[in-house]
Amino acid sequence: MTLSAFRFGPLSIPLEQVFLVSKLSYALVNLKPVSPGHVLVATRRPVSRFNDLTQLEVLDLFTQAQRVSKVVERVTKAESLTLCIQDGAKAGQSVPHVHLHVIPRFEGDFANNDDIYDAMAHQPRVDNPERTPRSPEDMAAEAQNLRQEIGSSWNEEEAL
Amino acid sequence: MTLSAFRFGPLSIPLEQVFLVSKLSYALVNLKPVSPGHVLVATRRPVSRFNDLTQLEVLDLFTQAQRVSKVVERVTKAESLTLCIQDGAKAGQSVPHVHLHVIPRFEGDFANNDDIYDAMAHQPRVDNPERTPRSPEDMAAEAQNLRQEIGSSWNEEEAL
Repeated sequence: MTLSAFRFGPLSIPLEQVFLVSKLSYALVNLKPVSPGHVLVATRRPVSRFNDLTQLEVLDLFTQAQRVSKVVERVTKAESLTLCIQDGAKAGQSVPHVHLHVIPRFEGDFANNDDIYDAMAHQPRVDNPERTPRSPEDMAAEAQNLRQEIGSSWNEEEAL
Repeated sequence: MTLSAFRFGPLSIPLEQVFLVSKLSYALVNLKPVSPGHVLVATRRPVSRFNDLTQLEVLDLFTQAQRVSKVVERVTKAESLTLCIQDGAKAGQSVPHVHLHVIPRFEGDFANNDDIYDAMAHQPRVDNPERTPRSPEDMAAEAQNLRQEIGSSWNEEEAL
């Protein structure tokens, strides 16, 4: 059996956009990043709420998030990170599948600190040209780079 | 030995403001909540960055966060939660000690969805009267209520 895609709510994420896979979690690049380097860590199991996670899923999601946050900070030369789960629709969750946003932060990266939250909630501001969807090639290249940086030796058989 | 306070960065949090204690984490009410029910879950060990946490700390912090989020959602009758770690100063972290914000969310709770992030970053808007510090009595009463709701049977000796 060969993995060909990962489920993300109602969406299907191609392998090319995934840069880390563990037994219970996977990390993916973003179609509409808030800023360059903004990636997601999701559970393999498609559940919508944080409280739906088992202890093993909690442990796996956040230890993989540590690996991801470390490499994102190194690659983007960020000094801080916003780590956020929009847990439910009223919190701005757009895909009903538990996922952690990992967003590199810099001094003065947003005109207002709160712009990042607005962007994260998928409510692009009309004056923000960066919120156009990226090309599949661009996303695949980013994932490929992160895969190498993270030293990801994921084995499809093992991950299944 | 009796616990009299918990360390939170350079601050000391009195027991009255703590409503859940585990071996490696504790949950506390907020001096300046973004909205009623906004609480924090922190590590016992005073480290500043998410990547400083051990696997055991990661597991404990987020499984306790599940207990906390469940009770916050029930008590406030919220339908969603914002779960966020400001990981580093450039991400708006005001106390250099790993802590997860648990914020109940409702339809139309903020004029703009992004106001919550601004508030979380401790940049109170001048027109927001809710951002004044609360009284110790008010905070103790909230913690007492949450302690009962969560069925917290924390034992000081055990927690130490």
